[in-house]
Amino acid sequence: MSFPCQDDILFMPDASTLWPLVLRLRDAAPLVQCITNFVAMDITANVLLAAGASPAMVHAEEEAADFVALGGMLSVNIGTPFSPWVAGMESAVAEAHRRKTPWVLDPVAVGATRFRGELVARLLPFAPAVIRGNAAEIHALAGRRDRLGKGVDSAPGTAASANIAAELAKRQRCTVVMTGVTDFVTDGARTVGISNGHPMMARVTALGCSLTALVSAFLAVSDDPVLAAAAAVGYFGICGELAADGAPGPGSLRLRLLDQLYALDRQTFEQRLRLTT
Amino acid sequence: MSFPCQDDILFMPDASTLWPLVLRLRDAAPLVQCITNFVAMDITANVLLAAGASPAMVHAEEEAADFVALGGMLSVNIGTPFSPWVAGMESAVAEAHRRKTPWVLDPVAVGATRFRGELVARLLPFAPAVIRGNAAEIHALAGRRDRLGKGVDSAPGTAASANIAAELAKRQRCTVVMTGVTDFVTDGARTVGISNGHPMMARVTALGCSLTALVSAFLAVSDDPVLAAAAAVGYFGICGELAADGAPGPGSLRLRLLDQLYALDRQTFEQRLRLTT
Amino acid sequence: MSFPCQDDILFMPDASTLWPLVLRLRDAAPLVQCITNFVAMDITANVLLAAGASPAMVHAEEEAADFVALGGMLSVNIGTPFSPWVAGMESAVAEAHRRKTPWVLDPVAVGATRFRGELVARLLPFAPAVIRGNAAEIHALAGRRDRLGKGVDSAPGTAASANIAAELAKRQRCTVVMTGVTDFVTDGARTVGISNGHPMMARVTALGCSLTALVSAFLAVSDDPVLAAAAAVGYFGICGELAADGAPGPGSLRLRLLDQLYALDRQTFEQRLRLTT
Repeated sequence: MSFPCQDDILFMPDASTLWPLVLRLRDAAPLVQCITNFVAMDITANVLLAAGASPAMVHAEEEAADFVALGGMLSVNIGTPFSPWVAGMESAVAEAHRRKTPWVLDPVAVGATRFRGELVARLLPFAPAVIRGNAAEIHALAGRRDRLGKGVDSAPGTAASANIAAELAKRQRCTVVMTGVTDFVTDGARTVGISNGHPMMARVTALGCSLTALVSAFLAVSDDPVLAAAAAVGYFGICGELAADGAPGPGSLRLRLLDQLYALDRQTFEQRLRLTT
Repeated sequence: MSFPCQDDILFMPDASTLWPLVLRLRDAAPLVQCITNFVAMDITANVLLAAGASPAMVHAEEEAADFVALGGMLSVNIGTPFSPWVAGMESAVAEAHRRKTPWVLDPVAVGATRFRGELVARLLPFAPAVIRGNAAEIHALAGRRDRLGKGVDSAPGTAASANIAAELAKRQRCTVVMTGVTDFVTDGARTVGISNGHPMMARVTALGCSLTALVSAFLAVSDDPVLAAAAAVGYFGICGELAADGAPGPGSLRLRLLDQLYALDRQTFEQRLRLTT
Repeated sequence: MSFPCQDDILFMPDASTLWPLVLRLRDAAPLVQCITNFVAMDITANVLLAAGASPAMVHAEEEAADFVALGGMLSVNIGTPFSPWVAGMESAVAEAHRRKTPWVLDPVAVGATRFRGELVARLLPFAPAVIRGNAAEIHALAGRRDRLGKGVDSAPGTAASANIAAELAKRQRCTVVMTGVTDFVTDGARTVGISNGHPMMARVTALGCSLTALVSAFLAVSDDPVLAAAAAVGYFGICGELAADGAPGPGSLRLRLLDQLYALDRQTFEQRLRLTT
């Protein structure tokens, strides 16, 4: 499959450029402030810890911006939105924007209710460095929701769908991560496809949310959001497929995913990574 | 043990009528909106996903009713009640009532504080299709709390206790699931006893809460709440006892329960199910 | 290593005096009300259940004090502070103080933001029986935050650091548990060092928070907070190191910790416990 918007002049990731970011993350143990949903808190914190980062779930309006000022990374997920937290999200992303801290947005189910659409509209002006969502969410943000799944031109996993993600990235001047059977990372100029992971991962709650926070952690160890996101997506997907291998069900997969994030080695990473650039 | 209120004219479940509901659930992957407590969110979502349903934790007043209108099932659990959420619960159950969506109520610890009693009193007029609780909760709802455990006539697990559940079902015109050593499912006219499960399940938090949400999922694949609830209870109990078998402790049980929900087959279900009708 | 402030006249714990508390906890199944953070709720409840206690997560202003009046223990953790809950925390600890129920405070990240400092300042007048934190938190509470890690005199794990904990205990007239490579339990007059646990435990979220709640449970079975806290810390640390033994990563450790809490026997406890009094 070939992807749109590629530009040979720009640096494209490969296994040998991504693996060092995993090591750097383990070494740096970056602080990652998460404003996330109630379902995702436990697994997100455990994913970050297993990968070597230092999670802090800090969302209250009274302290969210103060905490951003401590200098960590920031990840915002709207999974279980709640009015009193909206002010915390807004003050945190405003402070991140002011400090030029690259932050990541996960617009969970943005197309499902008006409330979510309005919430995302209030956060986008603060310029997330990365937006991470599934095809339905990314298409909805791109204003292409009505075409989702209605024709092969924009079905999840296709080049046309990747094009929609690239358009969104250009318009928002950010990097978009659109996860699915194939995950796409695009900044509008470069698009990377990553085909790791396993279907059983969809049977464990909040793994997408956890990946979003993991992207934040990688932004602490790379100045290029495309590389950071591709490293996070590849690393997470490889650990997920290793965890699924022989797992009798999603309970085992969830446990093994944490073990794999902790223990993955370079050789396995480089053998398993399935990148298309 | 024989149970009160049986009526041979009404259809009574057995293993061969319940197993197809498990398959139908896996096939239909019904959307289940959960307004549940903070402790239960992770395990509830994972139980639903392992069983094949699609959970959505949506509770905010601004969107709870909008989400019900999308057409999924609804499960409401008051485990960690919180004022701003009460409005979300009320608008959601009102919308479910208006749309004739059968919803399930879990009145956690309803007898413990006045706040919980008042909350349940505000929800009951919207006519839950199923109420799921332990004996203390069901007896409290039936106004028989003072007799709980004070005499053999209403001790948990006895026919007298099942009678209290049946009375509540008649009065509320709903199906009542009362879990314990033996679980009872009753609509007042029919009472089914189910004796699966394992005592170690009580050492894992929020499994009762998760079962409540699972009952909701089964309501999507059967028009008869007694069948739906009996299928959920039997399936969950069998998976729990399989998970407990040889488990060194509750950490293992919790993981294996998710694996079993994902993998259970017809033969094991039919061999293990212990129904008394 | 020798510790300050020891007094031979006071009773000091050893393995043979602590193990019976573990048994008493399993037998008594004490009710433990937890007002804790969103990340810690699931694992805290599961830790308490595995150890044999009965957790209840009850934090709403409308019922928190009513629930304290039911006579259980109380544990308050400020990990994800949230304004509407502050009133619940305050009314709960006020009721505990009035009833002379010994309660435990976990001042998570108290030095990180002004909001947390102010919150703790509102709770301390209600006289927690035990404060449980890491060295940064305990030093911050002791007003010695600026020296943390700046010199060997107060580095975590040293006698000087233990001295800071003992000073705090004297000033607050409570028992302080300061966890780290070596955990210290001190009431200012007696200081006990406990060197169980495993570094990989830091890769699982909310284990410190869970330990705090476990200390609450042990206060139900001992009138001496130093003994209660030492039993909780030793029991938890031993189970953690057994869980880490051979674990491929933190996912496995988390599961095995719950299994070990459930299954630990006297012989293993007495062989493993590493106390310094």
